[in-house]
Amino acid sequence: MHKLNVLVAQYPNQEAVFRIIPSRVEAALARAAPSMPPVEFAWCATDDPAFGERVAAADAMIGFRFPTEHIASPGSALKLIQVAAAGIEHLLPLDWLPRSIALATASGVHAPKIREWATMVFLMLHSRMPHFVSAQRAHAWSKAYSSHIAGRSALIVGTGGIGGAIAAAARSLRLRTTGVRRNVRPTRHFDTVIGLDALDGAVAEADFIVLAMPLTPSTRHIMNADRFKRMKPEAGFANFGRGGLVDQDALRAALLAGTLSGAIIDVTDPEPLPSDSPLWDAPRLIITPHLSCDDPESYVPRTLDLFLDNIRRCMDGRPIRNRVVRSRAY
Amino acid sequence: MHKLNVLVAQYPNQEAVFRIIPSRVEAALARAAPSMPPVEFAWCATDDPAFGERVAAADAMIGFRFPTEHIASPGSALKLIQVAAAGIEHLLPLDWLPRSIALATASGVHAPKIREWATMVFLMLHSRMPHFVSAQRAHAWSKAYSSHIAGRSALIVGTGGIGGAIAAAARSLRLRTTGVRRNVRPTRHFDTVIGLDALDGAVAEADFIVLAMPLTPSTRHIMNADRFKRMKPEAGFANFGRGGLVDQDALRAALLAGTLSGAIIDVTDPEPLPSDSPLWDAPRLIITPHLSCDDPESYVPRTLDLFLDNIRRCMDGRPIRNRVVRSRAY
Repeated sequence: MHKLNVLVAQYPNQEAVFRIIPSRVEAALARAAPSMPPVEFAWCATDDPAFGERVAAADAMIGFRFPTEHIASPGSALKLIQVAAAGIEHLLPLDWLPRSIALATASGVHAPKIREWATMVFLMLHSRMPHFVSAQRAHAWSKAYSSHIAGRSALIVGTGGIGGAIAAAARSLRLRTTGVRRNVRPTRHFDTVIGLDALDGAVAEADFIVLAMPLTPSTRHIMNADRFKRMKPEAGFANFGRGGLVDQDALRAALLAGTLSGAIIDVTDPEPLPSDSPLWDAPRLIITPHLSCDDPESYVPRTLDLFLDNIRRCMDGRPIRNRVVRSRAY
Repeated sequence: MHKLNVLVAQYPNQEAVFRIIPSRVEAALARAAPSMPPVEFAWCATDDPAFGERVAAADAMIGFRFPTEHIASPGSALKLIQVAAAGIEHLLPLDWLPRSIALATASGVHAPKIREWATMVFLMLHSRMPHFVSAQRAHAWSKAYSSHIAGRSALIVGTGGIGGAIAAAARSLRLRTTGVRRNVRPTRHFDTVIGLDALDGAVAEADFIVLAMPLTPSTRHIMNADRFKRMKPEAGFANFGRGGLVDQDALRAALLAGTLSGAIIDVTDPEPLPSDSPLWDAPRLIITPHLSCDDPESYVPRTLDLFLDNIRRCMDGRPIRNRVVRSRAY
């Protein structure tokens, strides 16, 4: 039987927590056996001059950042690219992607970690932690009481792997959950699902607004000055998606004006946030450095399990999990 | 039937959230009926020249701060003093308290709110939120990963109403819980219970150390330089009790030296923390202004329910709930 050639595209300076190393691959193969066909893993740096050739010789590839100009080449065997991230905005537009190659995201891999992080973020927004952190900077003992969180409402924009995990966290805190999705239909963990056309009204009603959707040309700055102004002054905002979903100047202006009570954002535009950005000192804003979804123990193992499953699906002619739909760009 | 005279001792500048106002008393009486004997509530400011007389004429009193020199007076009818707080360190020593008067705390009233706050604090310490808040002040994008919280260990010093609620929160996050109490015996919500003599060893093992005990002469500075040095460098610390339980200079030195990963404290010594205190700027420390236990919606109602129950117990000759034991000073 032909051994499948699998290439790991390694980009320079990747953080250890995300590295797909041989020991993790071996462990994933052991978990996947015995139903796993024979595969041969190889590694290549994305800045290696031979990278294009190595891609063309592979049946499947896993990576995060890679030079897309090398993907479509005559006689290439490549059938599957597994992106080791939930978002692929750094690979857009997808004009480099041949129709013969399935591109898959790691959507869902983050769910267990994000659920824990989201529980914390809801409780922090509810308990006015952004206010206390700002008051502490000013050496001010400034009370702000909160009651129980149960019964408040969470508006979660995006109902995919991450949005669903956030909604599960919200429900375990006995929040009411409203999800925003393109195709409105009943969705697990959500009490109500609405379309993007109903977003303005929902923003004005919610106690917590959380972004958890892909960044595409149509979602860029979905939270803009107008929408921040619509928020209730006691409401809190969080971004688990991508920095570009938010007009950061508008967020800062809204915090300065007090049209919302506080915000906790895990993503910024750009990243890392430059040290001279005025966002660092915006009042009642807590910034974490894009790791709300990243569990150092489980992230790579779960991504590899997904990748191996997708390799099997590819071979069997079954649908690929998390396959990117070109027209919606995620 | 003789109507019981109940006095509400109001101290000046009390925050609205803690005020025992007629509408709240009426609501509590309605909840307690029909088993409640007739009572007559009256109000008196603690700085009123007639305060001493009013106390002597009352059968029961509820208050937080009051002049203790007026309590023991010849011919006084007073049998019960309900303190509207879990801690009575501001009333120590108890040399002013006649043996004929039962003094009760509001221990347990805070449990539902504290459970929510403790869940947040455990997740914040685990997720390195004190680190991120410090990094943000320095405009630094500084990653620090965390995995799942389940399986970590929480050492909770104090197993009373607040400590028990913290342990319940810890258990719901699937932490292992160790409680420290004077009389070592199996205690609800705790996997293990140890005595104060075993504290040094336990401090060195715990992932989270939480203080939730009364401040008495024997617990003052229970967390001192030596104990902070014993902590694991990745461990987090929280104080839900009283500021005086912690040697604050030692806490600051430990944070500067990195012998613990971060701290979240809801209480300081003194309170409010003076604006020139160096504690405000200690690294990886989050300070909240003594409200972790205070639910503006339920605090006074639950305290009044306890008080009315204690009045009934007093009349029936049954044991008072939360009666302060003079020898242990809480």
